[in-house]
Amino acid sequence: MSKGLTSRSQDYSQWYNELVAKADLAEHSAVRGCMVIKPYGYSIWEKMQAVLDQKFKETGHSNAYFPLFIPKSFFSKEASHVDGFATECAVVTHYRLKNDGNGNIIVDEDAKLEEELIVRPTSETIIWNTYKGWIQSYRDLPILVNQWANVVRWEMRTRLFLRTAEFLWQEGHTAHATAEEAIAETEQMLDVYADFAENWMALPVVKGKKTANERFAGALDTYCIEALMQDGKALQAGTSHFLGQNFAKAFDVKFTSKEGKQEFVWATSWGVSTRLMGALIMAHSDDSGLVLPPKLAPIQVVIVPIYKGEEELAKISEAVDVIIKDLKQKGISVKYDDRDTQRPGFKFAEYELKGVPVRLAMGGRDLENNTVELARRDTKTKETVSRDGIANRIELLLEEIQESIYNKALQFRTENTRKVDSYDDFKKALDETPGFIAAHWDGTSETEAKIKEETKATIRCIPLNNEQEEGLCMVTGKPSSQRVLFARAY
Amino acid sequence: MSKGLTSRSQDYSQWYNELVAKADLAEHSAVRGCMVIKPYGYSIWEKMQAVLDQKFKETGHSNAYFPLFIPKSFFSKEASHVDGFATECAVVTHYRLKNDGNGNIIVDEDAKLEEELIVRPTSETIIWNTYKGWIQSYRDLPILVNQWANVVRWEMRTRLFLRTAEFLWQEGHTAHATAEEAIAETEQMLDVYADFAENWMALPVVKGKKTANERFAGALDTYCIEALMQDGKALQAGTSHFLGQNFAKAFDVKFTSKEGKQEFVWATSWGVSTRLMGALIMAHSDDSGLVLPPKLAPIQVVIVPIYKGEEELAKISEAVDVIIKDLKQKGISVKYDDRDTQRPGFKFAEYELKGVPVRLAMGGRDLENNTVELARRDTKTKETVSRDGIANRIELLLEEIQESIYNKALQFRTENTRKVDSYDDFKKALDETPGFIAAHWDGTSETEAKIKEETKATIRCIPLNNEQEEGLCMVTGKPSSQRVLFARAY
Repeated sequence: MSKGLTSRSQDYSQWYNELVAKADLAEHSAVRGCMVIKPYGYSIWEKMQAVLDQKFKETGHSNAYFPLFIPKSFFSKEASHVDGFATECAVVTHYRLKNDGNGNIIVDEDAKLEEELIVRPTSETIIWNTYKGWIQSYRDLPILVNQWANVVRWEMRTRLFLRTAEFLWQEGHTAHATAEEAIAETEQMLDVYADFAENWMALPVVKGKKTANERFAGALDTYCIEALMQDGKALQAGTSHFLGQNFAKAFDVKFTSKEGKQEFVWATSWGVSTRLMGALIMAHSDDSGLVLPPKLAPIQVVIVPIYKGEEELAKISEAVDVIIKDLKQKGISVKYDDRDTQRPGFKFAEYELKGVPVRLAMGGRDLENNTVELARRDTKTKETVSRDGIANRIELLLEEIQESIYNKALQFRTENTRKVDSYDDFKKALDETPGFIAAHWDGTSETEAKIKEETKATIRCIPLNNEQEEGLCMVTGKPSSQRVLFARAY
Repeated sequence: MSKGLTSRSQDYSQWYNELVAKADLAEHSAVRGCMVIKPYGYSIWEKMQAVLDQKFKETGHSNAYFPLFIPKSFFSKEASHVDGFATECAVVTHYRLKNDGNGNIIVDEDAKLEEELIVRPTSETIIWNTYKGWIQSYRDLPILVNQWANVVRWEMRTRLFLRTAEFLWQEGHTAHATAEEAIAETEQMLDVYADFAENWMALPVVKGKKTANERFAGALDTYCIEALMQDGKALQAGTSHFLGQNFAKAFDVKFTSKEGKQEFVWATSWGVSTRLMGALIMAHSDDSGLVLPPKLAPIQVVIVPIYKGEEELAKISEAVDVIIKDLKQKGISVKYDDRDTQRPGFKFAEYELKGVPVRLAMGGRDLENNTVELARRDTKTKETVSRDGIANRIELLLEEIQESIYNKALQFRTENTRKVDSYDDFKKALDETPGFIAAHWDGTSETEAKIKEETKATIRCIPLNNEQEEGLCMVTGKPSSQRVLFARAY
């Protein structure tokens, strides 16, 4: 392990960058804006994928795979979609390189594509072009499909996990016979995301709808879950879109209804990405490193022997074997680190940095006393406990940690969500006590744009089941019937 | 279900294309050479992935993710690598589209990349450029990493699963301190592939080494598994490469050895792709549709009720529930198809086409007699059996089917592997009784190229542990110490 991290209070952004690097989560690649997800980081992403994939399947979805490339002309078919995505995309124009005879590899101009291909920034267009062939009758509906894939959006300012030119995600694309059914699907998937965020990531989220300005390009309604990071900035953690008949119309996808009428199909799409890794890291971690919720920790328990000589190590290992067996039987993932190349203190720091929820250490005295030292990553507390029933104790402790991390994040969010009534107070709050700000707004895109322009704060969402309250827009003084949630955001 | 398939004897190639389409496995997309993998096809691929991924992890590998794009200059660094891949790749030259003002979406020439990016055809170059930062000392070795990803090779003649411009695969990339360790890894992964092919795909394979002509671009040695399809053509089902120090030298990746010396790192890479789907389909299926080995079948057992009226259906469903419960307890995947929109005969044909290994049908008489009709997809046999102990019976039957499918393929391969001693007999065999041909060859690339040119047959491999046998090259008459395996191939 190298030296400690920059502290959050000193420089939150620097702390994040260092943590991502030092905990072996990801790094920048030689390709501008593209990241390498390192094995430890990827193992957390895999745990996320496994849980989400199961939830998708439990709600009736199947996985499929659609092409990486999208013909340029497809983007012209849905007007707002092209505005949203075509201006920041990777364009394939040729299909061959050649040697110029002097040993230089150059693009072969004889191999120019007739029509340029776009590396998918999202797949609505290629998928709806495909669905046209799959859908004739109401009997073919609904189509409930998800895709795990890489996508590319040519971001100019990138940050590992949070904003990268290439990222990994899943994108659900469903087709329905009625608007009601599509809206129900959109809402169901938002609930799936919220459930995952809260009960696996230990991340409290606000479910809401985006304003027109912040909608997905091509959607009639965008639902989202919004989380608050420790620096008081918001992070959009997942979105679910009701696309109406926009893509069906753009790609001429009709079905014969039960009544024998030709109708356009209704659509949804929904996605979460490796951005969730950024949210997970920023929401819980501290100045010593990662703090991982046990349900997503690749290693839940690490055991470190503290010994003098081979003989003592052998005895400790024997005692540790019993604990490992009991933990594994409970489905708890455990690592025994008996490397002789590193000292215990080094190992402690390493697992702290990597966010392993529970650490056991066993030394000579523990052997005699039938005890073990049990340390908890989230609270940084430790105690010496009996080895009797240790697996049960750890099982309960992991549940307690999961809950405790969630509660801590929830408390932070509660303390950092403020009602503000004047625009001056709003600006002051943004600078002095950043967080969610619930304020009245007149409902116009103009006012929203003005606020964004002047303060860099955006409307994160109009919370679902929002309390109705008469008030006046903090900027224009026009009447408003509810507060909406503002924040500066990632 | 639409009409039946073209038979294999009539037109094997047409049979394959129709089967892939009608069994809902995959289809061509709007993008030249790129396929859409449909949900049913993808669910088989997912089963393959899960098994392979577990095997990789059991052998100590972790997953990671590297960029989709590779800077053009990286390809120039390993000379043979560029010859192998640069001439058939997708080249990204721009990062923005724009509206030309007349509503046309065109490439924005102001957004030209300084250096073109290649969509990865394989990732050795970007990965070894990354490993340079990960490796300083022998303590950092070995690196045992795998990646599940999409890759693009601009194939001009494409066939679903077998040869597509974009395909899905996994690529392992490992780094070692010694040549011996790297070779052991290369061989270990070949064994993993062979085990997977034989024990999950029910596909007998020959393990061997490629000749110099057929090696991976940049490898010192390419190991492969070769399978025989029902039309007598061979299919390379997986490769494992010993890369020597080629990529370490190209990207200057050195480590300090235990003895304190600076040395170049040794490398392997190994991969299998969605091509395995093609192999699985072609090896076992028949004129009625897919035949899936039970271990990879998304649905292992389907149950179809045969009833007159709602009341009888209710009684059948009650009896079926018991069977379903028992099967699920054994981890057997089962689907109960009680759709009232389709007749039993239609359903039978559908599941036959989709290769479900076991079909149960239950009607009124079965209710009375405590029986069920049990049909086996691979042999197309059926019998009426008691429902007592039916789950046990099915569990054993699935094992028997798995074995039986393998044995059938093995017998086919045995019958279609011939020793041939003259070039005339060789040509005759290729045309009249295609299959593997074991023949003597003088060991030169020239003779190999001549044979390929004249007969379209290639040396599939030099089998591992090959029997040594004195002989004369069938073409040049020069001495040869072993037969090698020829075939026309996919």
